[in-house]
Amino acid sequence: MKIAVVNPNSCAPMTEKIRAAAEGAAFPGTQILASNPADSPASIEGHFDEAQSVPGLLREITAAEKQGAEGYVVACFDDPGIGACREIVSGPVVGICEAAMRFAAVVAPSFSVVTTLPRSVPIVEELARRYGCEHCCKKVRAADIPVLELEEKESGAREKIQAEIARAFAEDGCESVILGCAGMADLAREFTNEFRAPVLDGVVCAVKLCEALIGAKITTSKINSYARPRKK
Amino acid sequence: MKIAVVNPNSCAPMTEKIRAAAEGAAFPGTQILASNPADSPASIEGHFDEAQSVPGLLREITAAEKQGAEGYVVACFDDPGIGACREIVSGPVVGICEAAMRFAAVVAPSFSVVTTLPRSVPIVEELARRYGCEHCCKKVRAADIPVLELEEKESGAREKIQAEIARAFAEDGCESVILGCAGMADLAREFTNEFRAPVLDGVVCAVKLCEALIGAKITTSKINSYARPRKK
Amino acid sequence: MKIAVVNPNSCAPMTEKIRAAAEGAAFPGTQILASNPADSPASIEGHFDEAQSVPGLLREITAAEKQGAEGYVVACFDDPGIGACREIVSGPVVGICEAAMRFAAVVAPSFSVVTTLPRSVPIVEELARRYGCEHCCKKVRAADIPVLELEEKESGAREKIQAEIARAFAEDGCESVILGCAGMADLAREFTNEFRAPVLDGVVCAVKLCEALIGAKITTSKINSYARPRKK
Amino acid sequence: MKIAVVNPNSCAPMTEKIRAAAEGAAFPGTQILASNPADSPASIEGHFDEAQSVPGLLREITAAEKQGAEGYVVACFDDPGIGACREIVSGPVVGICEAAMRFAAVVAPSFSVVTTLPRSVPIVEELARRYGCEHCCKKVRAADIPVLELEEKESGAREKIQAEIARAFAEDGCESVILGCAGMADLAREFTNEFRAPVLDGVVCAVKLCEALIGAKITTSKINSYARPRKK
Amino acid sequence: MKIAVVNPNSCAPMTEKIRAAAEGAAFPGTQILASNPADSPASIEGHFDEAQSVPGLLREITAAEKQGAEGYVVACFDDPGIGACREIVSGPVVGICEAAMRFAAVVAPSFSVVTTLPRSVPIVEELARRYGCEHCCKKVRAADIPVLELEEKESGAREKIQAEIARAFAEDGCESVILGCAGMADLAREFTNEFRAPVLDGVVCAVKLCEALIGAKITTSKINSYARPRKK
Amino acid sequence: MKIAVVNPNSCAPMTEKIRAAAEGAAFPGTQILASNPADSPASIEGHFDEAQSVPGLLREITAAEKQGAEGYVVACFDDPGIGACREIVSGPVVGICEAAMRFAAVVAPSFSVVTTLPRSVPIVEELARRYGCEHCCKKVRAADIPVLELEEKESGAREKIQAEIARAFAEDGCESVILGCAGMADLAREFTNEFRAPVLDGVVCAVKLCEALIGAKITTSKINSYARPRKK
Repeated sequence: MKIAVVNPNSCAPMTEKIRAAAEGAAFPGTQILASNPADSPASIEGHFDEAQSVPGLLREITAAEKQGAEGYVVACFDDPGIGACREIVSGPVVGICEAAMRFAAVVAPSFSVVTTLPRSVPIVEELARRYGCEHCCKKVRAADIPVLELEEKESGAREKIQAEIARAFAEDGCESVILGCAGMADLAREFTNEFRAPVLDGVVCAVKLCEALIGAKITTSKINSYARPRKK
Repeated sequence: MKIAVVNPNSCAPMTEKIRAAAEGAAFPGTQILASNPADSPASIEGHFDEAQSVPGLLREITAAEKQGAEGYVVACFDDPGIGACREIVSGPVVGICEAAMRFAAVVAPSFSVVTTLPRSVPIVEELARRYGCEHCCKKVRAADIPVLELEEKESGAREKIQAEIARAFAEDGCESVILGCAGMADLAREFTNEFRAPVLDGVVCAVKLCEALIGAKITTSKINSYARPRKK
Repeated sequence: MKIAVVNPNSCAPMTEKIRAAAEGAAFPGTQILASNPADSPASIEGHFDEAQSVPGLLREITAAEKQGAEGYVVACFDDPGIGACREIVSGPVVGICEAAMRFAAVVAPSFSVVTTLPRSVPIVEELARRYGCEHCCKKVRAADIPVLELEEKESGAREKIQAEIARAFAEDGCESVILGCAGMADLAREFTNEFRAPVLDGVVCAVKLCEALIGAKITTSKINSYARPRKK
Repeated sequence: MKIAVVNPNSCAPMTEKIRAAAEGAAFPGTQILASNPADSPASIEGHFDEAQSVPGLLREITAAEKQGAEGYVVACFDDPGIGACREIVSGPVVGICEAAMRFAAVVAPSFSVVTTLPRSVPIVEELARRYGCEHCCKKVRAADIPVLELEEKESGAREKIQAEIARAFAEDGCESVILGCAGMADLAREFTNEFRAPVLDGVVCAVKLCEALIGAKITTSKINSYARPRKK
Repeated sequence: MKIAVVNPNSCAPMTEKIRAAAEGAAFPGTQILASNPADSPASIEGHFDEAQSVPGLLREITAAEKQGAEGYVVACFDDPGIGACREIVSGPVVGICEAAMRFAAVVAPSFSVVTTLPRSVPIVEELARRYGCEHCCKKVRAADIPVLELEEKESGAREKIQAEIARAFAEDGCESVILGCAGMADLAREFTNEFRAPVLDGVVCAVKLCEALIGAKITTSKINSYARPRKK
Repeated sequence: MKIAVVNPNSCAPMTEKIRAAAEGAAFPGTQILASNPADSPASIEGHFDEAQSVPGLLREITAAEKQGAEGYVVACFDDPGIGACREIVSGPVVGICEAAMRFAAVVAPSFSVVTTLPRSVPIVEELARRYGCEHCCKKVRAADIPVLELEEKESGAREKIQAEIARAFAEDGCESVILGCAGMADLAREFTNEFRAPVLDGVVCAVKLCEALIGAKITTSKINSYARPRKK
C-alpha cells in the first residue's frame, strides 16, 4: 500500500528525516511517498505559519492521490488543514498529534507533551481538548527550541528535549511522553529506551494508524462534514 | 475608529450586505472598511473552502491595518484563520461565530444555531465546544440552503430559515437563536421582532464587540500564542 | 444611552471609583448612572455578603429602569443576583466577571484571575466553570487583601496585586490577567502598560459590553428563564 | 438530633407538607424543626423569587442554630442561598436538589427531573452541571404547573406530574426520576411504587443526608469558602 | 437494619478495623455484617488485584442478602465490582470512594485525596471523573505506603499520611481531604480534629449513606443497567 | 507477529467468528491466537457477567504471553478487565470498544453505537465518556437482541441491527456507526457497503491497532498504573 506523508513546511531535510522515520516504522508492503510543498514557510511556528502552509499541503495531498496513495499523514504536530484534506481525498487522513494522543491513551493512563516553542503550547492544549484528551494530557511543555534548530547538530536541542522529558516524568505524574514536533521523529526510540517508558513520536504513530485504517478498509465518511468540496 | 470587516469569500454582493449590516449597527464614530479577497472561493461551505480562503483573508487584514484599522471582524461563521489574523495585527480580531455565542450567553441561558448546509453543522458544533458553549448550545440546525442562495431573492431561503428558527424555539428548549452565516446578516432584526426573542447575527455582534474592545483599549496579547510570526 | 452601574455593596467611595472607570471607558453618548444600595454590606466577601446585597441591588436596578436606563452593570466580581436582575428589567444585564472573562477569551488563549481574599477563590472558580471558561482560566489567585483596603492608599494593596499579577504571568502560563474585584477598576490601565499584556477590569468590560448590546438592540430573552417574575 | 428544615417561601401549608415528609423519613431520634420566613414570596418560581427569599431563609437558619439544630435542609429545589447558609452555621447545610441528585446517582446510572414550570428548567440544568451531574441527568422536564397548584387538590397537578414521569421513563433513557419541587414531597413514595423504579423527592433525601453527616460528625469546612462572614 | 460491609481483600485484621469504624458510626438500630472473601488478594493495589477480588466480593454480597442485609458497602477505595453488586441484590450498594466524594462535596467546595501507592492515583483520578467530581477534586496524592503497612504499628504509615494531608491543605487549595483507603478508617476522626477541617473516611461515609438510602426506602433501579443478571 | 484475541465469554462459535474477522483483517505476517475461557458466562450482558468473565480472561492473557503473543485484544465491547490485563503482560492490550471509538474519530466527526441489549447502553455511554468521546458519540442504541441470538441464523438479529443503523444515520446526525458487540464482527463490511458510510467493528479495529502498536514498538507503560501486580 502507498501512504503519502506530507511535511507541510518547506524544509527538505526535515522531510527526509520524516521519511526515514516513516519508512523505519512501516510494514514491508508499505511504500512511503514523502513530500513537502515548495512554497510554504520553512517551519511552522504558530497559527500564521500553519495557515500559510495549508494551500501547499492540499496540493501535495491531491498529487499523492493521483500517485496512488491510499492514506495520508500530515506531518506537523499542529495538525493543520486536516479537515480540508479529509474532504478532497477518499483515503483516511491522519494528523500526527491526533495519532500520538490516541496511541498514548492505549498504553498509559496519561501523557505530557514536549514541544518546541512556548507559542505552540496553547495550540497543542486546544488540540488535546478537541481530541477529548484534556483529562489524560497532564501538561504541554516547551523545550524552547525554534523548529529549525532540530536540524542543527550543534544546537543543543536534543539535550533540551531530554531535560524537559525528565522534568515531565518527575513533576507531571504522566506515565508517557509525546514529542510535539515532526522534527523530533528520530528521537523517540532512544528516549523510550533511556526513560524506560513510552516516548511517542507522532510521525510513526500516524503512519501505523494509516496502515491500520487502510488494512481495515476504513475510509473517510463522506456523509456531510468530509464530503467532497461543493462546486461553486 | 476604523474597523475592518473582511468577508473571506469572494462574493462581492455578500460583502455589501455585510457592510450594510455593520454600518447599520456601528456607533456614529465608527468607520467600516468592508472588503473581500478577489481570489478566494465564492462561498465557504466546509473545511476546504475555509482553508482556501485564509491566505486572501490574511492579506486583507494586513492591508486594513495599513489603512488604519484598529480592530478586525472575520465575517464567516466558521471563524476561519482567526488565530493567524491575531498574530499579524495589533488590534483585536473577532470572529462572528465567537461574537454571537458570547453575546447570546448574556441575554439567554441557551441558544440554537441555524446555519446553511448540513456539512457545516459539525464545524459549528466544534466551535461551540471550543468556545466553552457546549452546555448552552442546544442544537445546531441546517436550513439546507447553499450559501449563495442567500443572495437570490427567489430562492426561498428566507422562508426555510424562518421555518428552522420556528422549529428551534418549539423543539430545542433554546431561548435565543443565532443565525449561522454572514449571509444572513440582514435577517436578524426582523426575525427578532417576529419571534419576540433574540435572533442574533454574528456580523453585528462582532462589530459591536470590536468597538467595545477598541473603546476599552484592550488589544491582543502578544505574549506567546498570538505573538507576531517568527522570521525564518 | 443610559447605563446603570450598580455597586451592590454600600461603600460609596468604591461606587465613585467605579463611576470614574465606567465614565472613562464609555463612548461620548453614554450616560453612566452609578449607584449603590444604602443598606447592603460595606463590602462583599463571600456568599453571605452576596446574598445580603441582592435585595438592595434589585431595588437599584428597578429604580434605574425608571430613570431610563437601557442596560445594567452589576459591579461586583461575584456576579450576584444577575439572573434576578435579568427578570425584572428589559435591557441587558451584565456581570463584571462574565464580561471580563468573555473579553479576555477574545484577546488571549487563557487568563488568570487576581482577586482579593482566598475565600473568594472558589466562588470565582465556579463562575469560570459556569461561563464555560474552565479550560482557559489557568488559575484564580488571591492577593490576600480585604476589599476595603483597596480604598486605603497606605494599605499596600496595589503592591500586593502587582506582585500577584507578576506571579500569574511567570507561573501560570496565562496570557492575560483579570482583576477580580470592582474595587480594582482604577488599576487595569497602568498594569496593562507595566506588564505589556492585557490586564482586564470587569467594570470597563461590562460597560462596553452593555453599550454593545444596547447598540445592537439585543435585549434579554423573556421566553422562560428571564421572564418577568410571576404574580402570586 | 435536631434538623432544621426551612422552606424558603412563605406558603405555610407547603411547609406542613414538607414537615410531614421529613418526619416520615427521619430516624426515631431525629427531631424536625420545620419553618418558613413570614415575608418571602408565596412560591419560588425563578431567580427573582429565589433572591427575595434568601434573607428570610438566612434568618430562619440562624434562629434554628439557636434552637439547637445540628444540621439544616433548604427545602426549595433551586437550592437558593446554600453557600450563604453554610457560612453562618457550623452544622452541615443540604439543598434538596443536591441531595436528590447525589442519591439518585447511587441507585441508577441516570435520572430525569420533573419540575413545575418551564422557567425553572434552565435553573435545574445549571444546578445539574454545578453538581457534576451533566452526564447522568438525561433531561429536565416541566409539568407546567405553577407551584401553588401543588397545594390545590382539584388542580390536576398530580396527573400532570404522573404523565411527565411516564414520558421521562419512556423517552429519555433515564433509570430514575427526581421530583423537582419541595411541594411534590408527598408524591415520591406512591410514584416509586407505581413506576417500579426510584422516584426521588429531595426533601426526604436531604433530611437523610443531613442525618448521615451529623451521625458521621462531618461538619462544614471553615477554611475559606464557608468561613463565618467577615466583620466589616 | 442490617448493612453488609464487605472488605474485598482477604486481610482479616483490616476487616476488623473496618467493622469497628462502621459500628462506631452506625445508628443504634443498625447491625453491621462485616466480612471478607477468604480467597481474594491480601491487599488491593491496582487493577489486577481489583479484578481478582471481585468474584469473592460478589459471593459475600449474595451471602449477606441471604442473612437479611438491606444495604451493602464495598469497602475498598477503588470501588471494585460496584455495578455487578448492584445487579445481584435489591438493596442499595455503596462504594466508599463514591460515598466520600459525594459527602465531601456537601461540606466543602473542593477536596484532595490521600491514598496509599502512586499506582492507585490514576485509578482514583478516573473515579473522580466518573462521579462528576473532576472540578472539585484538586489533587490525588499518594503517601507511598503499601496497603498492609497500614496494619503495622511501627511502619510509620500514620506519620506519612499526616504529612501528606498537611501538604494537601498547604498546596492544593483544597478545603477538605478524603482518605483514599479503607485501611485508614481509624484515622479520620483524629485528623479532622488535628487539621480543624473535614478529613473524611469512605467507610463511615458509605455506611451512613447506606443507612440513609435504606431509611428513605430508596433501592436500586432495576430498569436496565442494574437489572438482575440474565439467565443464559 | 502473534496477537492474542481473547473472547471473554465461553461461547466457542462466537470465538470462531471473532477469529475469522481478526484473520480476515490481519496483515500477512500476523498470526492470530483466538481463545476463550472455558468457565466464563456464555455471553456478557451487564456488569455481573463482565466481572465473572475477568478471571478467565486474565488466565487466557497470561497463557498467550507464554505462547509468544506480543499484543492482546479483549474481544468484548464492554472492555472488561483491560486495566488488569495491562498489568500482567508487556505487550499492548487493546479493548474493542476503545479501538473502534478511536478509529471512528479519525474518519468522521461523530458516531453512534448500535449494541445488543438496552442494559448495555449505560455501560457504553460510560466508556464513551471515559475515552473522551462524549462530544463525538451522538447516541448509543440497542437493537434489543440477546447476545447469543447473533449466533442464530433465524433470529432476525441481522435485520434488527440493520434497522437500528438506518435509524442512527437518519435521526442522530452521526456520520459513522460502531457495532457494539464482538458478535457482530462479521457484519461491518456489508453494512459499510450498504450504507456507503463507515460501519466499524471493534474486533477488526483492535487487531489493526494492536498490529500498529507492535509494529511501532510501543508497549505499555510500567511506571505506575500498569506496573506488574505487587507481590503480597
